Amino acid sequence: MKKFFSVADVDDLSILVKDALALKASPYALRDLGKNKTLGLVFLNPSLRTRLSTQKAAMNLGMDVMVINMDKDGWALETQDGVVMNGTTVEHIREAAAVMGEYCDILGLRSFPSLKDKEADYTEDLFNKFVKFCAVPVVSLESATRHPLQSLTDLITISEHKNVEKPKVVLAWAPHVKALPQAVPNSFSEWMCKAQEQGLVDFTIAHPMGYELSEEFTKGAKISDNLEESLQEADFVYVKNWSSFAEYGEVYPVAQNWMMDNEKLKLTNNAKVMHCLPVRRDLELSSEILDGPNSLVIKEASNRVWAAQVVLKRMLEKLK
Amino acid sequence: MKKFFSVADVDDLSILVKDALALKASPYALRDLGKNKTLGLVFLNPSLRTRLSTQKAAMNLGMDVMVINMDKDGWALETQDGVVMNGTTVEHIREAAAVMGEYCDILGLRSFPSLKDKEADYTEDLFNKFVKFCAVPVVSLESATRHPLQSLTDLITISEHKNVEKPKVVLAWAPHVKALPQAVPNSFSEWMCKAQEQGLVDFTIAHPMGYELSEEFTKGAKISDNLEESLQEADFVYVKNWSSFAEYGEVYPVAQNWMMDNEKLKLTNNAKVMHCLPVRRDLELSSEILDGPNSLVIKEASNRVWAAQVVLKRMLEKLK
Amino acid sequence: MKKFFSVADVDDLSILVKDALALKASPYALRDLGKNKTLGLVFLNPSLRTRLSTQKAAMNLGMDVMVINMDKDGWALETQDGVVMNGTTVEHIREAAAVMGEYCDILGLRSFPSLKDKEADYTEDLFNKFVKFCAVPVVSLESATRHPLQSLTDLITISEHKNVEKPKVVLAWAPHVKALPQAVPNSFSEWMCKAQEQGLVDFTIAHPMGYELSEEFTKGAKISDNLEESLQEADFVYVKNWSSFAEYGEVYPVAQNWMMDNEKLKLTNNAKVMHCLPVRRDLELSSEILDGPNSLVIKEASNRVWAAQVVLKRMLEKLK
Repeated sequence: MKKFFSVADVDDLSILVKDALALKASPYALRDLGKNKTLGLVFLNPSLRTRLSTQKAAMNLGMDVMVINMDKDGWALETQDGVVMNGTTVEHIREAAAVMGEYCDILGLRSFPSLKDKEADYTEDLFNKFVKFCAVPVVSLESATRHPLQSLTDLITISEHKNVEKPKVVLAWAPHVKALPQAVPNSFSEWMCKAQEQGLVDFTIAHPMGYELSEEFTKGAKISDNLEESLQEADFVYVKNWSSFAEYGEVYPVAQNWMMDNEKLKLTNNAKVMHCLPVRRDLELSSEILDGPNSLVIKEASNRVWAAQVVLKRMLEKLK
Repeated sequence: MKKFFSVADVDDLSILVKDALALKASPYALRDLGKNKTLGLVFLNPSLRTRLSTQKAAMNLGMDVMVINMDKDGWALETQDGVVMNGTTVEHIREAAAVMGEYCDILGLRSFPSLKDKEADYTEDLFNKFVKFCAVPVVSLESATRHPLQSLTDLITISEHKNVEKPKVVLAWAPHVKALPQAVPNSFSEWMCKAQEQGLVDFTIAHPMGYELSEEFTKGAKISDNLEESLQEADFVYVKNWSSFAEYGEVYPVAQNWMMDNEKLKLTNNAKVMHCLPVRRDLELSSEILDGPNSLVIKEASNRVWAAQVVLKRMLEKLK
Repeated sequence: MKKFFSVADVDDLSILVKDALALKASPYALRDLGKNKTLGLVFLNPSLRTRLSTQKAAMNLGMDVMVINMDKDGWALETQDGVVMNGTTVEHIREAAAVMGEYCDILGLRSFPSLKDKEADYTEDLFNKFVKFCAVPVVSLESATRHPLQSLTDLITISEHKNVEKPKVVLAWAPHVKALPQAVPNSFSEWMCKAQEQGLVDFTIAHPMGYELSEEFTKGAKISDNLEESLQEADFVYVKNWSSFAEYGEVYPVAQNWMMDNEKLKLTNNAKVMHCLPVRRDLELSSEILDGPNSLVIKEASNRVWAAQVVLKRMLEKLK
């Protein structure tokens, strides 16, 4: 594996999940695999769960880890070619990525979208250039349009907690006070669509009119603007806010109450409730659910380690 | 040891000090004890000595360390239940603490008081909730009302440098330009009061009128507003500024000169002078003392490693 | 080696380069040398390459590393003696350096010049006081007037890529939008002058009138304000901007075009082009050179690891 960016970088989802759960059972069994190998984690945006879980995963494999907070260093990168660099960008991504690739055996990169320029965000220009110029394998720690370590985590968590062969999974839009990227729902959707193809889940997306995701990510999903109907017989409800893709980055007032709560939970098949965190309590998701027996959010966050570890393991095996 | 927050978490002070000094004699002897164990150091406020010494202590025991600067990430935590999170807090302490507990075997937490809301500060709400929700052992790296790793360090330092069985220790208030918390003097006082109970020291507190500490921390101490009298026959003088507890966080003008200097040192039994650092030279404590033979401040700071290491050692032993 | 600050800290340059290249050939051969030793990297200014390469070098030698970003912690140091510390500085360098020396076996320090007070900058007051008070070996990670790890890297890179016994090396001033320190060119110049003394290179400096470096660093160098003439027969061109030393920190308008490009490259002996990075593309150095076969900038950056590693190795050997 030279790149972990989207579900297209994985062949068989079941095998990847099985490998991740084997690492969960024996976290330190491969402590020699990463010996003398260095992981560089590059953040252009803040991170809590992703940084800690990926760092922990790397240490479990015996790797050294260097964290690079470029957001805090004010080290503005130039990404365009043919620009005379007489302004505020201090280094071109060609040099910055290449140099970090010289010091590290694997790199992770986090970079959020602008939410202003749809085309620039959706071409994943920055991530792709980073991959191109750094010359080592790259793990996405969330990019403009995707968060694949989160989605793999979610698939692992669903596999662990399912009671039926092919559970019904609902991605349910929820309210928020800020305009959030589509990266998490895009990514969850493309992973669930592939999981559906491979016979692992039955997948539905519910959101208010105007919050349609890009069709690139939702092929094969049932899509509805009726939350109550969508929740019928659901085994897993994945709660998440996102801003509009069509009117890029916009937030519309939504008349109906889309916050997930116990009342809505009654419509489901006693569904387990998931969220990538951080969650706004009693805005996106009720406290009664978060503090009750149906919530998987902490177990889900915990599984971030095994998602990262299985990806790093595969990359390390290729380096050998 | 599931928690290291106050002197109440320790039974026999002499044994703890003896264990710490054994680690100082052989710092790397237990490098296998922390193998495959991760310490997470969570800072809601800046730290120099505490971070470095605790990180060093953990590495001496073979642990992996992850540092989490939540103050710099602008990751504002919600601590109250029943709040609709539609404001500026991005994550509830219930989730944040639980998730960090999933990635780490032991957590350290630093969180300063507001110095505005005495009740909130003195109930140690944030620290207690963190302990409650994270599910792993927690070391205080200084909380609203206490700094126990500093106080254990101070006891170790006194034990190493005493010339008599039961030295006279004086906590002496000193001037400053800012309103400082009571955490260090509270903590030093509760440790010295317990040390006095166990026959290890004779303890006096000297401060100007209006700077009384909470009685919760000073039971058994001699308390005086006469510095010169208090310094008579002192073997150790512990210099520290703090703001008012009664008029919470206030700073009163003090007419008399409370800065510790060589003139005052003559009143003592050639006392050793201590300070937790950072120290404001020639405001709290004179340069002539700091650069002279009576100062223990660097040796004291150095001992921070062994205080942290003995606490982590006890926690690791419980994890096994 | 107790200090790595200038070329004067090294006797035989050839032997140092040879040792560095031996480490490059076997990076992990000495993983036991740094066992139980801790490197503290103290930054009063930001760093990307220096931090990562030095951290990597230390890990290659089996050291533990602690990074201390004092710039981000707002931990303002007092460097003057005899000052009543009732202002904004929170700790004196006497205590800060001494304490860090207690927690670390070797320290690295980065501190940029003010570019306002020439005398203060050129006496290297801060670096020297840090060395004096910390009591352990100190590596400069760039100080007010020098960047020795960069210069050693450059010498290693020239040694690797030279086609003749004694190549002609030209340090060529280039334009920039900001007023930059003289540290890199000073340092490169003092290393090349010594290399010239030891028969390793032939050294020329080219810069516009008004950009003369301090003579302290350029003894033995040919100096010219004619770029075209200087480039004749050059085997290596080292491109770098700096601000005026005479009119300290000033930037003059320069009429002629001093940007290095392919047209100018034709004047040379098919010279290899070097730059310490970050580089402003098409301002200091043309993209066509940076993306072409004559550029060494990435290989040069990569060699930062071996420069740091050989210096740390020598310091560790002295500690044993």
